[in-house]
Amino acid sequence: MKIVIAPDSFKGSLTALEVANSIEEGLLKYNKDFIIEKIPMADGGEGTVESLVSLTNGEIITVEVKDPLLREIKGFYGMLGDKETAVIEMAAASGLPLLKESEKNPLVTSSYGTGQLIRDALDRGCKNFIIGIGGSATNDGGTGMLKALGAKFLNKDNKEISDGAAELNQLYKIDMTNFDERIFECDIKVACDVQNPLCGENGASFIFGPQKGADEAMMKVLDDNLCHYGKILENTFNLEVINVPGAGAAGGMGAALIAVVKAKLQRGIDIIIRESKLSEKLEEADLVFTGEGRIDYQTKFGKTPFGVASEANKKNIPVIALAGGIGEGTDTLYELGFDGIFSIVDKPMTLDESIKNCSVLVKEAAFRIINLYMSHERKK
Amino acid sequence: MKIVIAPDSFKGSLTALEVANSIEEGLLKYNKDFIIEKIPMADGGEGTVESLVSLTNGEIITVEVKDPLLREIKGFYGMLGDKETAVIEMAAASGLPLLKESEKNPLVTSSYGTGQLIRDALDRGCKNFIIGIGGSATNDGGTGMLKALGAKFLNKDNKEISDGAAELNQLYKIDMTNFDERIFECDIKVACDVQNPLCGENGASFIFGPQKGADEAMMKVLDDNLCHYGKILENTFNLEVINVPGAGAAGGMGAALIAVVKAKLQRGIDIIIRESKLSEKLEEADLVFTGEGRIDYQTKFGKTPFGVASEANKKNIPVIALAGGIGEGTDTLYELGFDGIFSIVDKPMTLDESIKNCSVLVKEAAFRIINLYMSHERKK
Repeated sequence: MKIVIAPDSFKGSLTALEVANSIEEGLLKYNKDFIIEKIPMADGGEGTVESLVSLTNGEIITVEVKDPLLREIKGFYGMLGDKETAVIEMAAASGLPLLKESEKNPLVTSSYGTGQLIRDALDRGCKNFIIGIGGSATNDGGTGMLKALGAKFLNKDNKEISDGAAELNQLYKIDMTNFDERIFECDIKVACDVQNPLCGENGASFIFGPQKGADEAMMKVLDDNLCHYGKILENTFNLEVINVPGAGAAGGMGAALIAVVKAKLQRGIDIIIRESKLSEKLEEADLVFTGEGRIDYQTKFGKTPFGVASEANKKNIPVIALAGGIGEGTDTLYELGFDGIFSIVDKPMTLDESIKNCSVLVKEAAFRIINLYMSHERKK
Repeated sequence: MKIVIAPDSFKGSLTALEVANSIEEGLLKYNKDFIIEKIPMADGGEGTVESLVSLTNGEIITVEVKDPLLREIKGFYGMLGDKETAVIEMAAASGLPLLKESEKNPLVTSSYGTGQLIRDALDRGCKNFIIGIGGSATNDGGTGMLKALGAKFLNKDNKEISDGAAELNQLYKIDMTNFDERIFECDIKVACDVQNPLCGENGASFIFGPQKGADEAMMKVLDDNLCHYGKILENTFNLEVINVPGAGAAGGMGAALIAVVKAKLQRGIDIIIRESKLSEKLEEADLVFTGEGRIDYQTKFGKTPFGVASEANKKNIPVIALAGGIGEGTDTLYELGFDGIFSIVDKPMTLDESIKNCSVLVKEAAFRIINLYMSHERKK
């Protein structure tokens, strides 16, 4: 019997690989002859680099970069096993978790560090990029990233405007003279699960500004500035950008990647499924385990377990999801192809306890579930 | 598809019938065409009366009785649907929960109230008795019970000794002149899950005395008194009693029932399984659900889920157990015939939360489990 184990991480507790290992232990406790294939997954958000690096026997590259406030920090990205593909989580250089609450200020935060990660990967010969743009602290339209790659953002006086979003309204011209042209030869896939336009009421500033520290007044300024910037992008690169779905992702990083480096925005989980060769690995599988820290009504919006279940369903393979906690609205998941959804929690306990014992709880849950699943074999 | 639902209660939260109803809801949520048979179970302990009454469309009879300290209280027992069988929980008249901590004193507590329950049932024409003797507060060798039925316990001066265990060492003669002889015509089954002899180091006083309030010195007195009492029992009724397994149950109540009314001591769960006609009801069943508040290493020592699983196994029917919490040592239960053991808890939560939401948690757990169980049908 072949079982594929393809979970996401349990955020705050176990990495995807650790979850997969614990599920494997539980299954082998039932029957050590199971043929098991582990595929640590992600959905384009946190953990994507780690999962793809692990999957391809790649490596993590650590790079000195500037954080959202342009302070030097250690950033990282993943070099996959093919030595040609870089996997970058924007949050590793330009993410909200890098700032204290009091430091959040999307008028000044810059995506510069993300550009540095890209540049480092270019220097190492990467031709393919997978860029996850979740969790950013910035609203600069990706200008910081482009600046790190050599672009200059000039005002009417031919002077560079300040970093961040504050002076985007003064932008007059984007000078691409010194831009790193190697990137135009690259295939760039962006993991993006939002559909927001660059600006307007559904744009980056109004929808994502508050979590980055913007108040009402600041949101208006940010939105005006992104609108102005968007028009210059459209004129400079001669294509529609502002209203392309996803242009407003990551404070307008989406727009910059679409307009300048012709990136393709895709659902994160779809990218990971392709990169992980999940579909091939499901051939001949009899059962699939997936999982995530939490499974609820949001799971169907492109979370890892949903993506895995969808692939498994194409091949009519039963799929079981484990979660730390099961939230509201999971009934529809059964209609969408999940066969089992179980919490690892085996008695009343605190969240802390469940996190501390997560590895054992995952193992024992897998053991319980496979016992039931195999009862058809035992009692036929 | 026919599914039998045969759980115990979740103590402190749901009765066995309520658990069965919630499991049923979860199963019907999956498929309203399931044929479901609900059998609220018990193991001879708390909840036995309620379960058997519910199973047989019997009724609960309330009776004024004396509590362990001979105060008037409302006791109860069950009159089963056949109107000939009484189900008595000794704890309803003579139980530890009827006393405050400071009132516990096995030198003085009396099983008199239990005898009153039996007498009331005789008055109503009962011919069969099922007596659960768990949870008693007494160590009087069942003398209180026998006294309520007309026996007299006399000392050398032909005076009645005091109630309780304190003067059992002065017992010289048991006067059965006025004993209620109707009971000799009855079939009396005693649900008893312990094997202790009446006295000695494994006897009632040393093993169960402490939980009833005895200290070291008192245990010694209690044991001496029960030994003396046991010899008189043996002489009076001309049979071996002291070392019969179970004679030491319920502070020697076992001995009294064995010696005087020729009761048969049986495992509680075996009595309930027979009374509930579980075996017949399992005919044609495709799946069995059981459950209890907690499932752990003790489950295999005659707890309801174990009894149900054993019956189901005789017919090779898969059996799934639900629990509020799963404790240590459940792995062996799979070898003993359980196919699935699942907690109802679906995320980290407190015990109070799990008790408060128990009904919904049980329902949703059943729904999750049946989804997985039926995946073989859906995906074959």
